[in-house]
Amino acid sequence: MSGSKKKEGEARGVAKPWGGRFSGKTDPTVERFSASVHFDKALARYDIRGSIAHARMLASAKLIPAEDAESLVNGLHDIAREIEEGSFPFDPALEDIHMNIEARLRANVGAVAGRLHTGRSRNDQVAVDTAMYLRDTSLAAQLGLLELRQVLIERAGEHVDTVLPGYTHLQRAQPVRLAHHWLAYVEGLTRDAERFADLRARIRFSPLGSGALAGSTLPLDRDHTARALGFEAPTRNSMDTVASRDLLLEFLSAAAICMVNLSRISEELVLWSSSEFGFIELADAYSTGSSLMPQKKNPDVPEIVRGKSGRAIGNLVSLLTTMKGLPFTYNRDMQEDKEPLFDSAETLRDCLEVLSGSFATLEVRVGAMAEAANDPMLLATDLAEILVSEGVPFREAHEVVGKMVGRCTQEGIALDSFSAEQMAEFHPAFTASAAELLDLERSFARRDLVGGTSRDRVSDALATTARELAAEASALEAAKAEDAGGEA
Amino acid sequence: MSGSKKKEGEARGVAKPWGGRFSGKTDPTVERFSASVHFDKALARYDIRGSIAHARMLASAKLIPAEDAESLVNGLHDIAREIEEGSFPFDPALEDIHMNIEARLRANVGAVAGRLHTGRSRNDQVAVDTAMYLRDTSLAAQLGLLELRQVLIERAGEHVDTVLPGYTHLQRAQPVRLAHHWLAYVEGLTRDAERFADLRARIRFSPLGSGALAGSTLPLDRDHTARALGFEAPTRNSMDTVASRDLLLEFLSAAAICMVNLSRISEELVLWSSSEFGFIELADAYSTGSSLMPQKKNPDVPEIVRGKSGRAIGNLVSLLTTMKGLPFTYNRDMQEDKEPLFDSAETLRDCLEVLSGSFATLEVRVGAMAEAANDPMLLATDLAEILVSEGVPFREAHEVVGKMVGRCTQEGIALDSFSAEQMAEFHPAFTASAAELLDLERSFARRDLVGGTSRDRVSDALATTARELAAEASALEAAKAEDAGGEA
Amino acid sequence: MSGSKKKEGEARGVAKPWGGRFSGKTDPTVERFSASVHFDKALARYDIRGSIAHARMLASAKLIPAEDAESLVNGLHDIAREIEEGSFPFDPALEDIHMNIEARLRANVGAVAGRLHTGRSRNDQVAVDTAMYLRDTSLAAQLGLLELRQVLIERAGEHVDTVLPGYTHLQRAQPVRLAHHWLAYVEGLTRDAERFADLRARIRFSPLGSGALAGSTLPLDRDHTARALGFEAPTRNSMDTVASRDLLLEFLSAAAICMVNLSRISEELVLWSSSEFGFIELADAYSTGSSLMPQKKNPDVPEIVRGKSGRAIGNLVSLLTTMKGLPFTYNRDMQEDKEPLFDSAETLRDCLEVLSGSFATLEVRVGAMAEAANDPMLLATDLAEILVSEGVPFREAHEVVGKMVGRCTQEGIALDSFSAEQMAEFHPAFTASAAELLDLERSFARRDLVGGTSRDRVSDALATTARELAAEASALEAAKAEDAGGEA
Amino acid sequence: MSGSKKKEGEARGVAKPWGGRFSGKTDPTVERFSASVHFDKALARYDIRGSIAHARMLASAKLIPAEDAESLVNGLHDIAREIEEGSFPFDPALEDIHMNIEARLRANVGAVAGRLHTGRSRNDQVAVDTAMYLRDTSLAAQLGLLELRQVLIERAGEHVDTVLPGYTHLQRAQPVRLAHHWLAYVEGLTRDAERFADLRARIRFSPLGSGALAGSTLPLDRDHTARALGFEAPTRNSMDTVASRDLLLEFLSAAAICMVNLSRISEELVLWSSSEFGFIELADAYSTGSSLMPQKKNPDVPEIVRGKSGRAIGNLVSLLTTMKGLPFTYNRDMQEDKEPLFDSAETLRDCLEVLSGSFATLEVRVGAMAEAANDPMLLATDLAEILVSEGVPFREAHEVVGKMVGRCTQEGIALDSFSAEQMAEFHPAFTASAAELLDLERSFARRDLVGGTSRDRVSDALATTARELAAEASALEAAKAEDAGGEA
Repeated sequence: MSGSKKKEGEARGVAKPWGGRFSGKTDPTVERFSASVHFDKALARYDIRGSIAHARMLASAKLIPAEDAESLVNGLHDIAREIEEGSFPFDPALEDIHMNIEARLRANVGAVAGRLHTGRSRNDQVAVDTAMYLRDTSLAAQLGLLELRQVLIERAGEHVDTVLPGYTHLQRAQPVRLAHHWLAYVEGLTRDAERFADLRARIRFSPLGSGALAGSTLPLDRDHTARALGFEAPTRNSMDTVASRDLLLEFLSAAAICMVNLSRISEELVLWSSSEFGFIELADAYSTGSSLMPQKKNPDVPEIVRGKSGRAIGNLVSLLTTMKGLPFTYNRDMQEDKEPLFDSAETLRDCLEVLSGSFATLEVRVGAMAEAANDPMLLATDLAEILVSEGVPFREAHEVVGKMVGRCTQEGIALDSFSAEQMAEFHPAFTASAAELLDLERSFARRDLVGGTSRDRVSDALATTARELAAEASALEAAKAEDAGGEA
Repeated sequence: MSGSKKKEGEARGVAKPWGGRFSGKTDPTVERFSASVHFDKALARYDIRGSIAHARMLASAKLIPAEDAESLVNGLHDIAREIEEGSFPFDPALEDIHMNIEARLRANVGAVAGRLHTGRSRNDQVAVDTAMYLRDTSLAAQLGLLELRQVLIERAGEHVDTVLPGYTHLQRAQPVRLAHHWLAYVEGLTRDAERFADLRARIRFSPLGSGALAGSTLPLDRDHTARALGFEAPTRNSMDTVASRDLLLEFLSAAAICMVNLSRISEELVLWSSSEFGFIELADAYSTGSSLMPQKKNPDVPEIVRGKSGRAIGNLVSLLTTMKGLPFTYNRDMQEDKEPLFDSAETLRDCLEVLSGSFATLEVRVGAMAEAANDPMLLATDLAEILVSEGVPFREAHEVVGKMVGRCTQEGIALDSFSAEQMAEFHPAFTASAAELLDLERSFARRDLVGGTSRDRVSDALATTARELAAEASALEAAKAEDAGGEA
Repeated sequence: MSGSKKKEGEARGVAKPWGGRFSGKTDPTVERFSASVHFDKALARYDIRGSIAHARMLASAKLIPAEDAESLVNGLHDIAREIEEGSFPFDPALEDIHMNIEARLRANVGAVAGRLHTGRSRNDQVAVDTAMYLRDTSLAAQLGLLELRQVLIERAGEHVDTVLPGYTHLQRAQPVRLAHHWLAYVEGLTRDAERFADLRARIRFSPLGSGALAGSTLPLDRDHTARALGFEAPTRNSMDTVASRDLLLEFLSAAAICMVNLSRISEELVLWSSSEFGFIELADAYSTGSSLMPQKKNPDVPEIVRGKSGRAIGNLVSLLTTMKGLPFTYNRDMQEDKEPLFDSAETLRDCLEVLSGSFATLEVRVGAMAEAANDPMLLATDLAEILVSEGVPFREAHEVVGKMVGRCTQEGIALDSFSAEQMAEFHPAFTASAAELLDLERSFARRDLVGGTSRDRVSDALATTARELAAEASALEAAKAEDAGGEA
Repeated sequence: MSGSKKKEGEARGVAKPWGGRFSGKTDPTVERFSASVHFDKALARYDIRGSIAHARMLASAKLIPAEDAESLVNGLHDIAREIEEGSFPFDPALEDIHMNIEARLRANVGAVAGRLHTGRSRNDQVAVDTAMYLRDTSLAAQLGLLELRQVLIERAGEHVDTVLPGYTHLQRAQPVRLAHHWLAYVEGLTRDAERFADLRARIRFSPLGSGALAGSTLPLDRDHTARALGFEAPTRNSMDTVASRDLLLEFLSAAAICMVNLSRISEELVLWSSSEFGFIELADAYSTGSSLMPQKKNPDVPEIVRGKSGRAIGNLVSLLTTMKGLPFTYNRDMQEDKEPLFDSAETLRDCLEVLSGSFATLEVRVGAMAEAANDPMLLATDLAEILVSEGVPFREAHEVVGKMVGRCTQEGIALDSFSAEQMAEFHPAFTASAAELLDLERSFARRDLVGGTSRDRVSDALATTARELAAEASALEAAKAEDAGGEA
């Protein structure tokens, strides 16, 4: 077999643009294996924008005639239109999106297309495309997180007085307001948004002009392209520029952490949709049925979001592992960076959108929540804290209430059934019946700490957060304009 | 925003087959989000085979009329043909491959199509499709591993007398035969093949008849479908059948471990292709050039294989994480099982193929290897072992030779330059000059242990392995026939 | 700073046994950094057993005097005793367990200790130690899985007639027997056990005699040590022996998959312990309380097991990534293989043990399960299948019952409230009232398929599984004896 | 077995502080299983600092008498001293570090110790300890990264004129200055440091006062403890505070990305230490020898660093997976967050330190680098760019030089051997001999772009970076002081 393969390996395949040095042809399986145009077409608009900026700079630096630059720019605009309209003829044999666009350009504008790659390598070209993609997709993540938080705040506003048990260990622990519970989601999502913002701030250098790894001997104007593409400055080291992928890894990390946050929120939607909890009902638009069991209504949307956290983690691991141990600078292994990036970006965008829709449309079963929160046991901690207010050391107070709870469990009675006398027997510092002491409203009112669950604190938190989100929305609008750069 | 979304959520979208219970429509983003036909079409042929077996069983069990079964089977064969010819109209709105096929069947054969899903749920249907896919793709992995080992054995046969340094810590350690080095690859790949064989042996139970989770109240004949589909028996517990994904995880693990093995082999191809090593030259068919630097010839194929190990590990992590903590039985999260499975299967298949091709066609630079192996330092251990043969304790012998090496380093002389007198000064048990003692041929001849690197041992290992691979090839042919089952 | 560091780097540190060639001392941070004795002491007993076998072989092959072998063996037995008694003086300065033992041996038996390392390298020494550890820990996993399944079978036997809802999407789907549900766990755990058994079968070759990578020039008797240590034969290629770690990766994979299975079982224990489900109560011995809330009883044990699945997956990823892209043969990176191995082995052992204990002692709330299973909606599929039995195509039957369910939901009535007349209106093939058709006992009785949930099928499955577990127990006893090998 | 286990489960074990509600004892395996003091002792100093701040606040808020606070603070200071001196009696039976300290406090100061836990839960206590640890360990990472970059800059300063090949695909590509190469490392490490800085900025809220999940009914002064512990303000939502772990995940991500960067640098140290490259020699203090082969000098330090990247990735995956899908708020699974955190923190610290030492002490083989860079082929791109300067489109120029390279390969001649006439034949725009055109010095001089590799650009980059690092050092000093907070 291998003998015949050897012959074949030499006979099959097509010639390549870098063919001058080569006498054999590429093996067809290798062609398919190393082709990337089926996924890197997501970079098309960035590639075109980068090429336009590069062409204009070449003319401005007198490296190509102005009229050639004009032809190149017009030709690139035409291609952009073709891609947008879906009429662009993608050809896997041309390996990647960059060669596809250059070949099309040559077909459209002729030999002048051969001037476009002046002072540029595929390495810095891919790097600048990816930087622009990464900047846009980080902004998209921020916007998706903004929307989800806005929905949560809006729905939370309806449920300041909806009470449900807060859980630890999935055991009912203490009563909380639903608005407070959802504000907890918002806090985590805000940190997620901050991580994407921090990453965006790091994507401020333009790779163009770094060449294959050592810059160029031509007098390129790196500041010119940097400005045109909305970057602050050129990258500071040509080898780092083409060798590094840590900004992609940072995106994948931020996405994975965010997806884990979403998986936890989704878990609650699934739990709360069960017959056993019965706290919410998802809208039909965000549920599905069963092909076998006619009675089923399934919380598919949060289940899929929860499941897709695995994908986001997998993508992160994939690129971390691929990059591990690679020497400087570019290695072909790094072609593997795009698919996890695109996949995590799209996964995150979709998950944020469907969760926003799910929260916007779900129905809260206020009564079921109230009933679950109604167990006096959930106020046991309050009893201990009442003793503490009377000067009893906490550990002793905890012990006393522990015994009361033990009695309730053994005798099958409620914690609020103890009379004032019985209470005094448990501890002389108790001066009223359990029922009087265990009042939910008063309990909430006392929880008047920053970040706490009293009515006022929760209302304040809602108002503050709403203000912050509005400011964030404005800032993101401004960021969009900046990214447009000199090309706008 | 969220208010308008709420309205929209109810207004947009299309009705679903399980629509009876639902009043709202599915949100279009959710449709796209939960659609799977773009990837699960890989299951089409298995789905059709499973449906044919199911239809025949239903007739044989008198659950549907024989002529209806006939119509169903003919209709399914037609669809199989359409898919093979590429004329099948895949429709993402129909969500998954199973609904696509059923809808097409209804269009082709009419209302009788509604009988096909009798006593079947999408849960056991997907399970049986996946089991057949998994069985086939495990066999494909075994075949790919067989081919690569056959190529290695063949090439190794040409290089029994080619000598190169064996390395530890990427430092030259001791001379070995190239055939011995490549036989080391073969040993690891054989264990990889065993893992897929073990997995295949576990895929011997047919899921059909497990229903959504609790079997069926209809008198299905589970043995009938099991036999027809080449399984040994029906699965033993209906809930386990629809809830478990560990066989997929086992495939992903075996693939990830195998890809790590391939990444190490690829690393050596990359190293050996460098100017610094210069041990091999990959065929042009398995290399590429540079768009900027005309002189470059790059080992892209092994680089991509090495890089794709990240993908295989990522896929494994993805599904492990998705499955973690899911309660029984089916949860929609588990839709996420297919993409990593398909991706790892295809990645592994391609990597095995291009590595086979690379090895079949690469050129060995025998001279460069010999030169690198020629440093007498690499035989330093032999000197120590000569002392041991003379009764010197090993630690003392090691110390003595360490001092000789230290002298060479300080004085910049070769280890084989010591005269018989000098040797005797280092240790009286030395009775000849270093040059006489440090003979490569004699050194090899002495390494006459099982698994060792003497000429005879390596030749024996080659012959034994070739025999084993031939036997394995026959066994795999037989396995293929068995999988065809009663349907063949 | 760096200047002074440079000086320091040369000045600090202690000399090493391989010191002959070196003039500088090791940096103390490097010493700590590269020391492994704090974790690889887990290999002590295997290291001693391997050394004893090696010493005896050396004598038998006349490579060392018989009385020296005697001294070595006695000295090693003494050390084994010291370690067992906890009096062995572990010294981190001696880097690893192997040097610790050798240094101690030298202190106890004198210069003859220097003969022990004859024809052996740390590479094959570590490899044989690890192989024995891996064999033992795989057996331990099998035994732990056996015990858990025995407990499950025993408890399942008490609950053949305990009915609860089977769930999909965490929505109640169809009623099942608790015994059937737990047998689903057993099936998955059996496949886990098979994976460890398959791995054990692959650990049948003895690494000793492979040297650093190229065997030895001394006439070692590799079969002798293989037999003595309970292996089938020596490994087949010296370079593969010291370079490969795939058997460790296979263990870590099998452990990760098993831990994911356990995480799912644990998730159910957590859910079922909640107030909302209330299906079980864990014994106090397997629960904990709260330092703040006196009323809490938390399912800590299953929570920790569920959480530790992350650790098992992390360990697997850790070693996969470490091995990725390493050239042959040994690289120091591979020192990182031990900690994940030991950690996953111990994690798995503990998790299996505490889950066995949890199941053995938990209390089933039969009434709560029955109540949850009592919703006639859960039998909706039965109604559809009744229509199918009357010749109605399944899709039509599903549609009909979908409408019935829709009516129930809208009007807030129970599915079994429809009279015979109403039923006939839904479909003429219905000839009785819903209440008559929806009988749980009859429903179960009809589910009489292999792997199904009828009383007989479940009882049979219990009996079969019990028999199989007994056979497995005997086989594991036999395996233990074999592993003891010629040394026993 | 299980029957006897059931009995045992109830009989064995010790009582717990939360014992009031419980009648059974904890199973001893469960005790060991759930104990954490063997690793969470790393939190001891933070726990004590947090408790001191809490005690002072309780007194200031009149919740406990001032003299009690005094006793508590003194007692805690005593314990801090004991821990520092190594005389603290850690007891695994007391489960975690927090109970160990509290028990010791009770032993030392008596019943007043029972007042310390007033208004505090183990949930917010652990959260504040972890926040302080995380803040410190992020700062440590920044400092470690600062030192490594300072060493690199210092060594780079010695090698502005040392030339070596820059590589892509591990093939020699274009000549670069060693200073430029090492500055590429610095750029990546700077982004690593920024990630830790961003994280530190997010750790600005104090968890204390969040209680178990719902704050407290006692009038705690959260601002007081926040200030005392160096935080900006209290956390904003009590449930988020105890439920979230994303800041830990962010640390683990930043560490994993950084370790991947270090693995790449280490890979180069390993490659460059090989006989084949011979570019550097590591100091003896950062190398080791072989127990078998007396001639070996192995680059163990960079190998271990490279290997430990697997551990950092594994730790990240471990916690991501553990957190995935957990409902709010605290679940016991989250106990699994500490070990990966501590392990990654220590791994990163050690790796940064040993790499700093390695770079400070390694010897550069300037001659070997120069020889490798000396191949005129590496300037082939320059020839193409010369044509471009003469107005030739780049693709045409690339083609021309491709043919020149092809001729060299076929005829075995050097690229600089072509005469002026031959050059003109290749392309008329060439007006000099290859030797004249291919001058390394002039080539470098032309590469005068921002981030490029000309002498001036590299010197500027060195100076700029040195200034920035000095500023960073000052900022980190200031940060340390801030963290000390009101307690300082």
